[in-house]
Amino acid sequence: MPQTGKLQKIGAVKQITSHSNPIVKEIKGLVAQRKLRTQSGLFVAEGLKLATDALSAGWGVRYLALGPEARDNPAAQKAAATAKARGALILEVSTAVMSAMTRKDNPQMVVGVYEQNILSARDIDPQGTTVWVALDRVRDPGNLGTIIRTVDAVGGSGVMLVGDCTDPFAVEAVRATMGSLFHVPLAKMTKEEFKALAKDWPGTVAATHLKGSVDYRTPDYKQPALLVMGNEQKGLEDDTAAACRTLIRIPQVGEADSLNLAVATGISLYEIRRNHLELS
Amino acid sequence: MPQTGKLQKIGAVKQITSHSNPIVKEIKGLVAQRKLRTQSGLFVAEGLKLATDALSAGWGVRYLALGPEARDNPAAQKAAATAKARGALILEVSTAVMSAMTRKDNPQMVVGVYEQNILSARDIDPQGTTVWVALDRVRDPGNLGTIIRTVDAVGGSGVMLVGDCTDPFAVEAVRATMGSLFHVPLAKMTKEEFKALAKDWPGTVAATHLKGSVDYRTPDYKQPALLVMGNEQKGLEDDTAAACRTLIRIPQVGEADSLNLAVATGISLYEIRRNHLELS
Repeated sequence: MPQTGKLQKIGAVKQITSHSNPIVKEIKGLVAQRKLRTQSGLFVAEGLKLATDALSAGWGVRYLALGPEARDNPAAQKAAATAKARGALILEVSTAVMSAMTRKDNPQMVVGVYEQNILSARDIDPQGTTVWVALDRVRDPGNLGTIIRTVDAVGGSGVMLVGDCTDPFAVEAVRATMGSLFHVPLAKMTKEEFKALAKDWPGTVAATHLKGSVDYRTPDYKQPALLVMGNEQKGLEDDTAAACRTLIRIPQVGEADSLNLAVATGISLYEIRRNHLELS
Repeated sequence: MPQTGKLQKIGAVKQITSHSNPIVKEIKGLVAQRKLRTQSGLFVAEGLKLATDALSAGWGVRYLALGPEARDNPAAQKAAATAKARGALILEVSTAVMSAMTRKDNPQMVVGVYEQNILSARDIDPQGTTVWVALDRVRDPGNLGTIIRTVDAVGGSGVMLVGDCTDPFAVEAVRATMGSLFHVPLAKMTKEEFKALAKDWPGTVAATHLKGSVDYRTPDYKQPALLVMGNEQKGLEDDTAAACRTLIRIPQVGEADSLNLAVATGISLYEIRRNHLELS
């Protein structure tokens, strides 16, 4: 468990106006540095919507910082009450402090610090799941967050982060999930662990690959499906591709070399779920 | 036509090591400020790939700045020769100057300044085209660039920017197009001009809309199609939606409120082009 500072009391409220307050510094560190996020097991998510998502999904909350506008906002006050009841320290901060913490000129009225939840390869049981996405060395936090959001939208079961990936708990990634981070299981694993999972996967294991000879519209995707997507620049490593039974390709004309990773993942996911999704 | 500085000679080569050189300042201004891009009709695109795309597609080039690594790179030298023959000023700059110009720690070896090309509503003739995308007040440069890239990939005919949109010539937007900016026609127009175009459009006019009752997989999309997408936060304005004959919706389950704009556009475009695209 991380150090939370000697000032914290469980379920307390604290006013902060100083930029040099140790909790402000701690939150700034969590925004800026992956190392501090990893060491503490904490991360920062901006905004009332994400706070509401985190709390309703039962995530651990360490701090909930409220700007001046949140004091008259019933939804923000409700989130604060829930967070406080779960042992969080509620911080009432000035707009200037909120801005400094999140390095944004127009900060959100609520900023939360939550406990990271991430699975490992051995936690994954494909039985009864719909579709997992495995990302091989994804680099861009916006792509990762957008993919988590899309997995949520198609009723997917989770996202595997294979090898050296960008941090899903970076502020930019969290922001791009639009709250889906709190609803979509994430798992982190080595390439070898992934290959072992792919080998025994009960449904379709499909990777998009430039050398793919199968049109993405062709396979009869068997659920639980596993969709495997490569790195933005380099695509999939050869041995990772070899671990996938079906190499699919999305046709492209024109002068574009490739699709954006999050777009290609979205198109593939909607194809895999094509016969399972209906308008509500 | 923009001021290009008294130092410029047509088709010349100039060494620059000073950060206070007026051309360096001009390029920094084009990177940072939309106002300066609009006034000058110029914009900045980073990278050799984009330079090659711009030159092969016949775009006007004002400056081509080459970092030290470009001097031994045959493709960069070829781009420089082409640009020079078209009247561009070739700048040989230090890595530090390149970094300062583009505000990046690891700058590309080639940075170009090109002349903007953008159509107006009256330039658009739908006859013989495949699919156009109209974006209503798109805000995020990454989304806009990614959509231009996807339109290129499906063999689309162009992108309409309706109302107050983010600048397609901003560095972040240009970067996200991955070069497709130079291959996909763009048009800028008011909402009223768009509504007039939509009214007389010969093929399917489909807008994604939360109130859409038609599943996106259902319509028999008639080409030339016009796909209309709303603002990231606010969606489509009611009167813009009313100008579209078919309101489609992409089904979503889970807790996500919506899809990312570029992902939703990609899924819709691949559906519209479903019967027209084949693996090469």
